[in-house]
Amino acid sequence: MKTSVDVHTYLEQQRLKVETALQSVFSPDWIIPDKLREAMNYSLLAGGKRLRPILALAAAEAVAGQAEASDRALHFACAVEMIHTYSLVHDDLPAMDNDDYRRGRLTNHKVYGDAMAILAGDGLLTHAFHVVSEAAKSGVPAERVLAVVRELSQYAGLQGMVGGQVLDMLGEQGTTSLEQLEAIHLHKTGDLIAFSLRSGGHAAEADDRQLEALGRFGHYVGLAFQIQDDILDLTGTEDKLGKPVKSDERQQKVTYPYLLGLDESRSRVSALTDKAAATLLEAGFVKPDRLLEIAKYLLDRDH
Amino acid sequence: MKTSVDVHTYLEQQRLKVETALQSVFSPDWIIPDKLREAMNYSLLAGGKRLRPILALAAAEAVAGQAEASDRALHFACAVEMIHTYSLVHDDLPAMDNDDYRRGRLTNHKVYGDAMAILAGDGLLTHAFHVVSEAAKSGVPAERVLAVVRELSQYAGLQGMVGGQVLDMLGEQGTTSLEQLEAIHLHKTGDLIAFSLRSGGHAAEADDRQLEALGRFGHYVGLAFQIQDDILDLTGTEDKLGKPVKSDERQQKVTYPYLLGLDESRSRVSALTDKAAATLLEAGFVKPDRLLEIAKYLLDRDH
Repeated sequence: MKTSVDVHTYLEQQRLKVETALQSVFSPDWIIPDKLREAMNYSLLAGGKRLRPILALAAAEAVAGQAEASDRALHFACAVEMIHTYSLVHDDLPAMDNDDYRRGRLTNHKVYGDAMAILAGDGLLTHAFHVVSEAAKSGVPAERVLAVVRELSQYAGLQGMVGGQVLDMLGEQGTTSLEQLEAIHLHKTGDLIAFSLRSGGHAAEADDRQLEALGRFGHYVGLAFQIQDDILDLTGTEDKLGKPVKSDERQQKVTYPYLLGLDESRSRVSALTDKAAATLLEAGFVKPDRLLEIAKYLLDRDH
Repeated sequence: MKTSVDVHTYLEQQRLKVETALQSVFSPDWIIPDKLREAMNYSLLAGGKRLRPILALAAAEAVAGQAEASDRALHFACAVEMIHTYSLVHDDLPAMDNDDYRRGRLTNHKVYGDAMAILAGDGLLTHAFHVVSEAAKSGVPAERVLAVVRELSQYAGLQGMVGGQVLDMLGEQGTTSLEQLEAIHLHKTGDLIAFSLRSGGHAAEADDRQLEALGRFGHYVGLAFQIQDDILDLTGTEDKLGKPVKSDERQQKVTYPYLLGLDESRSRVSALTDKAAATLLEAGFVKPDRLLEIAKYLLDRDH
């Protein structure tokens, strides 16, 4: 049980570090229209697990072998969360998923209107690249920062998250096969998680082999996380999840349990988590423990 | 008359160079959903003056003193046009300006639907940063490329173009003073033009004094350009403009002629163009002629 307590404490500590950093991504020196600042913060500071930024910090630690190394990844960690947030704001719009609530609060456009939600999303996306560029000030070499810019635009862009959103949207209009479902998750969710880990690696100046392993670990964990989400939607309780259960069924969403059944879905989560662990252990990290614990935590969670 | 012929030939040559480069910003090696690629290209390859990218190329030439220098600015030039295009696609959405036509063609969302137009805009914005990062391959030093990333996220972001869009949106809901109108144009239009020029300067490794002058030149020219647009909307012919005239009046838009009258608006364009020229001449560029010619061309145009 010791490991389990440890990982919870670790996740909470890192989450607080991320929350604090996110509170100052919009410099007070910048002249930003008040309403825009408010709308962006409404969604950016709405809480949540902050899983993606924490993975960035933990990846830096795994490469460097010391906890302090994660500080150099903090800019990248914030940028990932900004990208994740903008994608949710745009995804919730009436033209897209048309959601009124997220995590029990009104969605951005329900509070600020559709036009402001579009612009707040555009602003978060654009400013994420600014936050990445600021990492140069924390001592990350310019070449590494530039590599992270390149990868963020790739993993969050046309053949990454945005491409995945398009596949998802087109998929909703017809039947979806397991192969299509996997392609959607790989890009819509997996790519940004893979980027999180690689960005942490860059902050700690990982070599190519380590970067490749971090990206692969991210894709395995991302897919396991997604399948686990689908399972919890069917088997969890509203109390623990903080949202209505069986919403996928009601919305007739194609999910892993729908295509494979619950048992097969569960064994996929387990197999993916094993693969993720093996990937890390083979690549010779100085201190992979935290990442392995987080992967195990994600598998075992009930919310 | 010689100068006038020259600048037209120059603009046409550079426009063709930009068109060709824009045709390959989405690498054929990238796996991008077909519909997304099509939607982005629909708006990106819709023609137009390509003024912003041409200014980037001309700025590199002004700093380096030779035409070949502009090749190193080509990535930045393409990125500017991608940002400009995404902003038009989002701006035309029903939730924003709700425009059905742009330059005589259906707007993006009228062809591909609102959801795809939002994602095409997000994709263009994200990929612009990728195109910037590619400049490192054309021999621009990593520090300069990173400076351009930082500036693009600033000039196109919260205190730049996106901030200007928000001011414009909020302004439409009340009366607008000359001061407010100027702040809107400074950010909504001027900042991206200033960025274009600075990015070209970075490509040619301009010093701080030159960069500052290029940005200032861009702001003067951008404002003059905007006032001239307002004037042409009132005095031009539909034939020359390729769009209905007096649309500002019909839409009850607050414009420079509305606030200042035609004569005062005209003398402002003239004064701003003089200031732009003086700024360049003071900063000691090797070859500022092209930029000066372009500024003059913008002032004299009738469409």
